[in-house]
Amino acid sequence: MDLALVLYPDMTALDLVGPYEVLAAQPDVTAHFVAATPDPVRCDSGLTIVPTTTFDALDRADLVVVPGGSGWARVLADGVVAAWLAGVHPTATWTASVCSGSTLLAQAGILDGRPATTHWALRDELAKLGAVVSTERVVVDGSVVTAAGVSAGIDMALTLAGRIWGDERAELTQLVIEYDPRPPYDSGSPDTASPELVAFARGVLTGS
Amino acid sequence: MDLALVLYPDMTALDLVGPYEVLAAQPDVTAHFVAATPDPVRCDSGLTIVPTTTFDALDRADLVVVPGGSGWARVLADGVVAAWLAGVHPTATWTASVCSGSTLLAQAGILDGRPATTHWALRDELAKLGAVVSTERVVVDGSVVTAAGVSAGIDMALTLAGRIWGDERAELTQLVIEYDPRPPYDSGSPDTASPELVAFARGVLTGS
Repeated sequence: MDLALVLYPDMTALDLVGPYEVLAAQPDVTAHFVAATPDPVRCDSGLTIVPTTTFDALDRADLVVVPGGSGWARVLADGVVAAWLAGVHPTATWTASVCSGSTLLAQAGILDGRPATTHWALRDELAKLGAVVSTERVVVDGSVVTAAGVSAGIDMALTLAGRIWGDERAELTQLVIEYDPRPPYDSGSPDTASPELVAFARGVLTGS
Repeated sequence: MDLALVLYPDMTALDLVGPYEVLAAQPDVTAHFVAATPDPVRCDSGLTIVPTTTFDALDRADLVVVPGGSGWARVLADGVVAAWLAGVHPTATWTASVCSGSTLLAQAGILDGRPATTHWALRDELAKLGAVVSTERVVVDGSVVTAAGVSAGIDMALTLAGRIWGDERAELTQLVIEYDPRPPYDSGSPDTASPELVAFARGVLTGS
């Protein structure tokens, strides 16, 4: 099974690495790190990842994962990721996004009229792009899977692993990555964080 | 504040990227990706990261994070990471590990007689190296912070962010990365997974 993990400048590393850690370790998976050029790609807090292939060279994959990141609007403007997604999605078994990666799926026409989720601060943006926006952490709709912000990619990938390789394999993976979360705070959602923190975070994330 | 994120062959990317995502985004943090050589480092499921500096060039940091990964025993055998850790730990404000990264702290003498945690499958190994092994997800002991397996690095880093930058800043970070975990299964700990799954995972992870 060919797994395509999309890279672009100022993506958020954890959006990609959560799903990668769950999916790339499964049996018979070949992970491809695909970007516009072979040059290393710098994530939005400085981690730099080396692509293994380019959009021009990889014209199909069984499973596609698109991360979000602070560079999403620039990548939406240049259209390169969405053009590639529009090409590979029709023959992919699964197309998935994390966080603002959903906007790139939407731009590719993949979310038209579909239920989909995204980072909580970008729900309006995603709705404007044609999706039926959900506040769920993970949404599975046919062959399209979307996750909420950043860390939600881990929950998304375990859900997907269960669908593809069965519950027992997904449970094994959860045990191997010791995913028994114990957040020291309860502010991971706009429903639980203080209104002041939500307003401040929204300003940081959207400039509004 | 200088944040040193240690890289070595066959490390587990999520061990590093969880803490990186929480810590590198904080105010006035400079993230250094430090490895034995400037060559890109391949993680155990194929993600390849570009170092920004080397062990020879970086002789101090305020905060050090050491990931685990399937390469831990080989890195323990060659001693390079532990030698560097022994040099930087005395002047670091915080020294932290995730998963089997704890064994490298132990080899450097940093965990002698200290309470510390690690991946659930490696508790015996860590005890043999001199630590007082805890089954907690995150252990803070003086300036040393250890986390359980892989995904526990996120909980560790939020704990550390609260100590360094205050609770509100840590809560903001949790909200920005939408860390409101909803694992689709309940098998993330050896206490909740089936005994058969625990035995199988232990065999995969330790070869025993």
